[in-house]
Amino acid sequence: DNPPCETLLRKYPNRIFKETIIFLQPIIGYGVARVLDSSHQNFTKGDLIWGLINWEEYSLIKDTSSLVKIQHTNVPLSYYTGILGMPGMTAYVGFYEICSPKKGDTVFVSAASGAVGQLVGQFAKLFGCYVVGSAGSKEKVDLLKNKFGFDEAFNYKEEQDLNVALKRYFPNGIDIYFENVGGKMLEEVLRNMRPHGRIAVCGMISQYNLDQSEGTRNLFLLVARSIRMEGFLVFHHYHKYPKFLEMVLPLIHEGKIAYVEDTVEGLENAPAALIGLYKGTNVGKQVVTIAHE
Amino acid sequence: DNPPCETLLRKYPNRIFKETIIFLQPIIGYGVARVLDSSHQNFTKGDLIWGLINWEEYSLIKDTSSLVKIQHTNVPLSYYTGILGMPGMTAYVGFYEICSPKKGDTVFVSAASGAVGQLVGQFAKLFGCYVVGSAGSKEKVDLLKNKFGFDEAFNYKEEQDLNVALKRYFPNGIDIYFENVGGKMLEEVLRNMRPHGRIAVCGMISQYNLDQSEGTRNLFLLVARSIRMEGFLVFHHYHKYPKFLEMVLPLIHEGKIAYVEDTVEGLENAPAALIGLYKGTNVGKQVVTIAHE
Ligand SMILES: NC(=O)c1ccc[n+]([C@@H]2O[C@H](COP(=O)([O-])OP(=O)(O)OC[C@H]3O[C@@H](n4cnc5c(N)ncnc54)[C@H](OP(=O)(O)O)[C@@H]3O)[C@@H](O)[C@H]2O)c1
Ligand SMILES: NC(=O)c1ccc[n+]([C@@H]2O[C@H](COP(=O)([O-])OP(=O)(O)OC[C@H]3O[C@@H](n4cnc5c(N)ncnc54)[C@H](OP(=O)(O)O)[C@@H]3O)[C@@H](O)[C@H]2O)c1
Repeated sequence: DNPPCETLLRKYPNRIFKETIIFLQPIIGYGVARVLDSSHQNFTKGDLIWGLINWEEYSLIKDTSSLVKIQHTNVPLSYYTGILGMPGMTAYVGFYEICSPKKGDTVFVSAASGAVGQLVGQFAKLFGCYVVGSAGSKEKVDLLKNKFGFDEAFNYKEEQDLNVALKRYFPNGIDIYFENVGGKMLEEVLRNMRPHGRIAVCGMISQYNLDQSEGTRNLFLLVARSIRMEGFLVFHHYHKYPKFLEMVLPLIHEGKIAYVEDTVEGLENAPAALIGLYKGTNVGKQVVTIAHE
Repeated sequence: DNPPCETLLRKYPNRIFKETIIFLQPIIGYGVARVLDSSHQNFTKGDLIWGLINWEEYSLIKDTSSLVKIQHTNVPLSYYTGILGMPGMTAYVGFYEICSPKKGDTVFVSAASGAVGQLVGQFAKLFGCYVVGSAGSKEKVDLLKNKFGFDEAFNYKEEQDLNVALKRYFPNGIDIYFENVGGKMLEEVLRNMRPHGRIAVCGMISQYNLDQSEGTRNLFLLVARSIRMEGFLVFHHYHKYPKFLEMVLPLIHEGKIAYVEDTVEGLENAPAALIGLYKGTNVGKQVVTIAHE
């Protein structure tokens, strides 16, 4: 008997968690944990780790391949679920490697206040780009402009015509699109891309819970404007993690980068928090605290 | 009064040639011509050139930026509209630079018997790839297998389900897709791409005469399989032409590469030939002979 999981299954019958939920296994997600006991040479009792762990209070982890030992503890531990963990690496790899940025490039980020987006925007600003983000509420738009230093931001839910909105902020077009949402937004972004533009395809959250994905028009513009559109998975880039930490830890300590989390307490609130991601109720990286230090 | 142009305009009211036709200007296309007189230092009377010229018997060419002087005449001159001209360069740049081929890669080419496709397939075979092409008639499929040396070929018009057809020839998936057609084919190819696959977007001929382009589903697979999809325009790569000739001329002379043209005689037959491209009536590169040497 697993009521939270049943809720998920009912709401998202076709999607990601189906198999997990049907077999009544714990859901797997990125988290931070303390090692209570270990027979693995890399981990000893008392170590802190981040990586793929179960949604449960105590776990027996057999597959340690995703686990990373936490070495720097003078930051909030929750950061290892975000800026110092998988989403941080995603922003880093996606922006620096897939977007091939140049100083002065115009950059658009969708789902810009999310775990990944807020970092992409800040990396792009530090790099010397003009950066605009879209998000789903006034509160998030304020955050983008006032906390994360985006040049401009808009609430995509309040725009009648995304093409018009994009033209307002990019009168000369977009060099780099960091794609988190897919669907209609991608279609309109394509119309506003500049020649030799790059689209880093990180995610398409608007498509995850559809029975069949929507079609995207305007793809011929990839030819007409020599655009590169490239998907990537952060898992293939984990060997760059030490280099990433070397760059990002000083930025955090010097206050040159901000990071916003949205924390709920207790495992029993995790399913609602997960569903909230698809509604945009989270403001910043969604974190669920299961136990305090 | 310009009846062929009116036919084009009636059939393709929204498309490429509209402006040209409305103003009753000659249509512009790639061709081979002999210089009758010239005040430009690079060209002298008697020279042969290829490049953008008008659909007419005698032309005054003011913009010479696309013109290339023909140096090698021990090949059919018509080759400079195809294998030794713009389509040849397109296949060369598209395959070697955009597809990032590796020996042993599985390669799929659509519109494979066309001016560009037949060369892409042969370049890929010479490179050591497994190559499959699609085309719109039995005659073309035979050509692909027996003349151009494709490993396999199929008639896409006779397949109930393109996904099934692609799985038949690519049980382990596609590493490289050379995209000439767009639409439904792209959607189904995406489902059959392998991780780290590359899609060189050369053209989308199935979309050119639609009022609104079709939507393409399955783009999330770009993320899930780390696929790069990249458009290109051959014009940006013309500086590589001498290097290309150095490679391709010996292949022609040694009979290591075949090239099929479909020739009609007379300017009056050019409009029908152009329309034929969108119906697939051409077998190989469509050439219109306006004057013989
Ligand atoms: N490629 C990889 O390796 C990799 C790794 C990590 C994450 N990702 C992907 O990256 C993207 C961002 O992840 P994240 O962790 O930053 O996201 P997140 O913090 O979980 O934020 C999700 C946000 O997406 C927005 N959203 C939800 N449904 C939407 C819709 N239908 N249309 C537009 N926006 C919608 C909501 O904000 P609004 O209020 O703004 O709508 C929501 O707050 C996701 O697509 C995720 O799958 C990819
Ligand atoms: N990016 C660049 O710089 C560049 C340069 C040159 C050409 N191109 C593009 O490259 C592509 C190939 O050019 P090409 O000169 O090789 O072509 P082509 O020789 O002109 O051949 C056109 C062929 O396309 C096929 N076709 C027509 N309508 C179709 C449809 N609705 N669905 C599927 N196939 C269709 C037909 O063959 P079937 O019988 O097989 O259907 C037709 O014979 C075109 O899309 C062109 O626009 C791009």
